[in-house]
Amino acid sequence: MVDGYRTREEKPMARIRSEIETPVAHSDGLEWLLHPITPADFLHTAWEQQPLLISRAQRDYFQDLPGLDEVDEMITTTMSGRRIVEDDASRLVRTDDKGRISQRDFRITRAGVPDIQDIYQAYHEGHTIVLNGIHRRSSKVANLSRALEATLHHPVGVNLYLTPRHSQGFDLHVDDHDVFILQLHGTKVWHVASGLSPATEHGKRPLSDIELRTMTLESGDSLYIPRGFPHRAQATATSSLHLTVGVHAFRWADLMTEALRLLADDDAEFRSALPPGFLDREIDPENVARLGNQLAHALTDESLARRARQSLGARLIGAGKAAPGGHFRSLDRLARLSDDSLVRRTRTMYHRIRSGPADVAIEFDGNFVSGPPFLEDALRFIADHELFRVDELPEIGNFHSKAKTDLVSRLIREGFLAVADEAPEGNHAT
Amino acid sequence: MVDGYRTREEKPMARIRSEIETPVAHSDGLEWLLHPITPADFLHTAWEQQPLLISRAQRDYFQDLPGLDEVDEMITTTMSGRRIVEDDASRLVRTDDKGRISQRDFRITRAGVPDIQDIYQAYHEGHTIVLNGIHRRSSKVANLSRALEATLHHPVGVNLYLTPRHSQGFDLHVDDHDVFILQLHGTKVWHVASGLSPATEHGKRPLSDIELRTMTLESGDSLYIPRGFPHRAQATATSSLHLTVGVHAFRWADLMTEALRLLADDDAEFRSALPPGFLDREIDPENVARLGNQLAHALTDESLARRARQSLGARLIGAGKAAPGGHFRSLDRLARLSDDSLVRRTRTMYHRIRSGPADVAIEFDGNFVSGPPFLEDALRFIADHELFRVDELPEIGNFHSKAKTDLVSRLIREGFLAVADEAPEGNHAT
Repeated sequence: MVDGYRTREEKPMARIRSEIETPVAHSDGLEWLLHPITPADFLHTAWEQQPLLISRAQRDYFQDLPGLDEVDEMITTTMSGRRIVEDDASRLVRTDDKGRISQRDFRITRAGVPDIQDIYQAYHEGHTIVLNGIHRRSSKVANLSRALEATLHHPVGVNLYLTPRHSQGFDLHVDDHDVFILQLHGTKVWHVASGLSPATEHGKRPLSDIELRTMTLESGDSLYIPRGFPHRAQATATSSLHLTVGVHAFRWADLMTEALRLLADDDAEFRSALPPGFLDREIDPENVARLGNQLAHALTDESLARRARQSLGARLIGAGKAAPGGHFRSLDRLARLSDDSLVRRTRTMYHRIRSGPADVAIEFDGNFVSGPPFLEDALRFIADHELFRVDELPEIGNFHSKAKTDLVSRLIREGFLAVADEAPEGNHAT
Repeated sequence: MVDGYRTREEKPMARIRSEIETPVAHSDGLEWLLHPITPADFLHTAWEQQPLLISRAQRDYFQDLPGLDEVDEMITTTMSGRRIVEDDASRLVRTDDKGRISQRDFRITRAGVPDIQDIYQAYHEGHTIVLNGIHRRSSKVANLSRALEATLHHPVGVNLYLTPRHSQGFDLHVDDHDVFILQLHGTKVWHVASGLSPATEHGKRPLSDIELRTMTLESGDSLYIPRGFPHRAQATATSSLHLTVGVHAFRWADLMTEALRLLADDDAEFRSALPPGFLDREIDPENVARLGNQLAHALTDESLARRARQSLGARLIGAGKAAPGGHFRSLDRLARLSDDSLVRRTRTMYHRIRSGPADVAIEFDGNFVSGPPFLEDALRFIADHELFRVDELPEIGNFHSKAKTDLVSRLIREGFLAVADEAPEGNHAT
């Protein structure tokens, strides 16, 4: 079911010297998370199949990510005011020796910020601090999420867990998304289901029946847990800080749901209301069967699957994250833009070209730049290259010589490109 | 496609004399909205097909609903604090003579309430006041929504529009849900698409191409507009107040989407992730076709359609509304409950019995009461009767004589039943 990993054609950006700091802009976030396991090996042997522990014996491997010293700052600076996003809910959680769980929200002071003294006290009493939505609270984490999405094409969200020594947050539980655990500080002992066959047992077996394998994560280690695999974790003699990088995979059922939605736009039978009062009666089985066959038939048209795929892509592009950082510095350098300038993509992220009869657009990170169809070749070149010289762009219609710098300037203002310094090893587009 | 209207077996509650005021508890809200047109005629000739104007020449027909005098109170009392529900967004809208539209949110004062003086000023300048989610701001409107849902089995939400004289709010537009316009005050001239064939033209024809029919709504009139039918409206020499009762119909596509979701819980192929990197490649057409056929086959199993239907029912039950009113008075009367007591359903609403091997539950209005399987006969009796005497309940297992009053007492505490006064025309269950 899972395709082989596709190597990105672009060379890694790390070799580009730049005075603009682009935090955690590893052009292949998955490679970085899994090192020294290759993404291809991971996708072949572990993804959706079994847990994978990567022990690196390199405590500072995740040093570019937020660390223990930044947790209380993040709580007080990023959680002021009233929460309006459901999955932002951050909280305090403890499971005691007898398996009893207690959890509560942060207290908010009259000034509208989380009561940090109360959080310190709860932590002292053994509560784990859970901060959700870290990809909206940290540029570094946002950029890691973007890089993973660029490779996986599945939405990625990140939560943070800080557990006091000898304590446990959640008890044994199952997530409905795949997770990578990145151990940032301390040691945590994980108990993860093993020998599960997710194809047949997903969520069906009682938790008490499941055989658990014990794995110890040290700072700098990664652990992959497929969705549907029960797990719990406990801190040891020191506190433990980890990020949970959640991959909320688009499934085949989601693709078909999108196809159904598109079909309903085109076909009045699918968008007809169910008969008023339908909940008290059997649904007309012939109509259900007929529509099922119509959907199956429609799915043999590859253009429907393609449109459904594009809809999922739009959802990936629309997912909100913290700003990548560095944009205002990038604008300061706009003045020196010329045909000779080397420009680079500001960050690795999923992006795409959409072309229609009347216009063409490059779409990225909740934003887009569109223009007349004669821009298509230039935009495709830009979409395919992480680093290029402005005059390497394909010709743009029959227009004046400033057309290339105008387009690049626009993409710099919108945050897709930035002026790069000269790369030491040559100036070819990559 | 649309089934005939099913007459409810219960007699209308209006004949029950009660000291508990149950506002707008018309047991058949649809009948009330459409009078003198019958629901059966409406569903046969208009529903999803064409607009229907009901001119009653009865200005006070909607007098039980909130009126012109209550709009500013509703703004300031129900909209304090920060909005957290997206579709709560209420605003000021004006379309001028040249078709230019201007709209903005309410200003919020430092005290956290809408700035009513600013709203008065905007209204004076020709802005329509749009209040969304009135089914969460008024018990009367909530109870009307509940009664409509009990008949239609589709979710119902209500918005309010107050337009100054000679003004227009939105320009010509299309809604994706069916609406009933209830004219509460003044006169409004509506221009509604006519001669559309929704089966083929839904949203496809340019708005400028569409033939509009003009209809004048006076206070007390109703107008039904099917989804997909463009419309606009203008106030005349007086201000105009109307409610838009929106029916967000569950469609056949929604039933199939639920079926797909249930199938993915059972079948690992449907819940497998799309291949990492799938957005840059064609989707494997054979797999899409195969899953399409599997879904079509699964839909021939009537139990899947039934489970999908139950999922939609759960969404209907879960939709939030203003409390129905009267519960605290009802609790005061609990003390006099006995086997002789006449009890009634507190309001017309969609409700259902769910029975499993281990328990049985009655589910209603975001709430449920569950218990051991031997309660099933009694709960089904309660679900089927709007008014009954406690000792009319079927026997409850082999338990003590208080079992019936215990169950009824529980349902009173949860707000499903209330002690009724004696009905003048007899005490039989209805």
